[in-house]
Amino acid sequence: MGLFTRDIKTMDDLFLHVMQDIYYAEQKIHGALPDMIDKATNPELAAAFKAHRLETEMQIERLATAFEMLGENPKGASCPAIDGIIKEANEIAGEVADKNVLDAALIAAAQAVEHYEITRYGTLIAWAQQLGRRDIAQTLNVTLEEEKKTDKTLSTMAERKINLRAAS
Amino acid sequence: MGLFTRDIKTMDDLFLHVMQDIYYAEQKIHGALPDMIDKATNPELAAAFKAHRLETEMQIERLATAFEMLGENPKGASCPAIDGIIKEANEIAGEVADKNVLDAALIAAAQAVEHYEITRYGTLIAWAQQLGRRDIAQTLNVTLEEEKKTDKTLSTMAERKINLRAAS
Repeated sequence: MGLFTRDIKTMDDLFLHVMQDIYYAEQKIHGALPDMIDKATNPELAAAFKAHRLETEMQIERLATAFEMLGENPKGASCPAIDGIIKEANEIAGEVADKNVLDAALIAAAQAVEHYEITRYGTLIAWAQQLGRRDIAQTLNVTLEEEKKTDKTLSTMAERKINLRAAS
Repeated sequence: MGLFTRDIKTMDDLFLHVMQDIYYAEQKIHGALPDMIDKATNPELAAAFKAHRLETEMQIERLATAFEMLGENPKGASCPAIDGIIKEANEIAGEVADKNVLDAALIAAAQAVEHYEITRYGTLIAWAQQLGRRDIAQTLNVTLEEEKKTDKTLSTMAERKINLRAAS
């Protein structure tokens, strides 16, 4: 959608726009993960990123299903937020010399991505319920729970292992 | 810090860099809030944004204190993530014609900002603890709890009032 075209007139329009925003974001995340997998030193962290990439593929499929439920074709809309989050992740990673410190930076970057997804899916679920689309809300809630679980896994990994090694 | 200068060698360097990142982010948020206050139609939402702007001022002061505890001068580092989140908020807001729908979009934008802050403060607190700086962790935790509370307030407001009006 173009700037200042005032294309969003109703909650249905806003809902569709944010669906397109997260559809674009999920694809960008899927594209960014191979580089994070390559950079991760800790094998457990690399494995977690690999698993999350597969999960992201399923989440993209699930979003496509939600678009179909809406009677719309799956389509992405440019999302400067995820572009900025990924740009920042690459910038910080590019500045880290030590491998263990890099692992800590990668986890922080991945958690920023997860929190962006958590807020967007949370908003979409609230709106879907209010628009009377409990079916779509339930579908998106599967992904929200996955994102929350990934965020917790990363927190646990960071607290127990990776940061401790980097600080020692 | 410049790109590819590999200035981050230790966890202390990484910690300082992310402190500078969130210091820049808080100032950008403080600068973005007056526009959000102006755009909000619902008086309760406008009041919440005003209260959050004052809270942000205190959070910036608290960050300055944390920099002092580290023996560093408070300084911001360019943060493409918050720039992207605010850019996206402005783009979506610029496309919304209906005032009630705009309120829903503003809440979603504010929650994306809150979640960015929640993830960054969460990371900084974990790192501060591991670096043996429980004093800094405790200071930053005051802000983290405030951000979580703001996020919940916005969710409640969205679910109970503003979105319902926009969907009707």
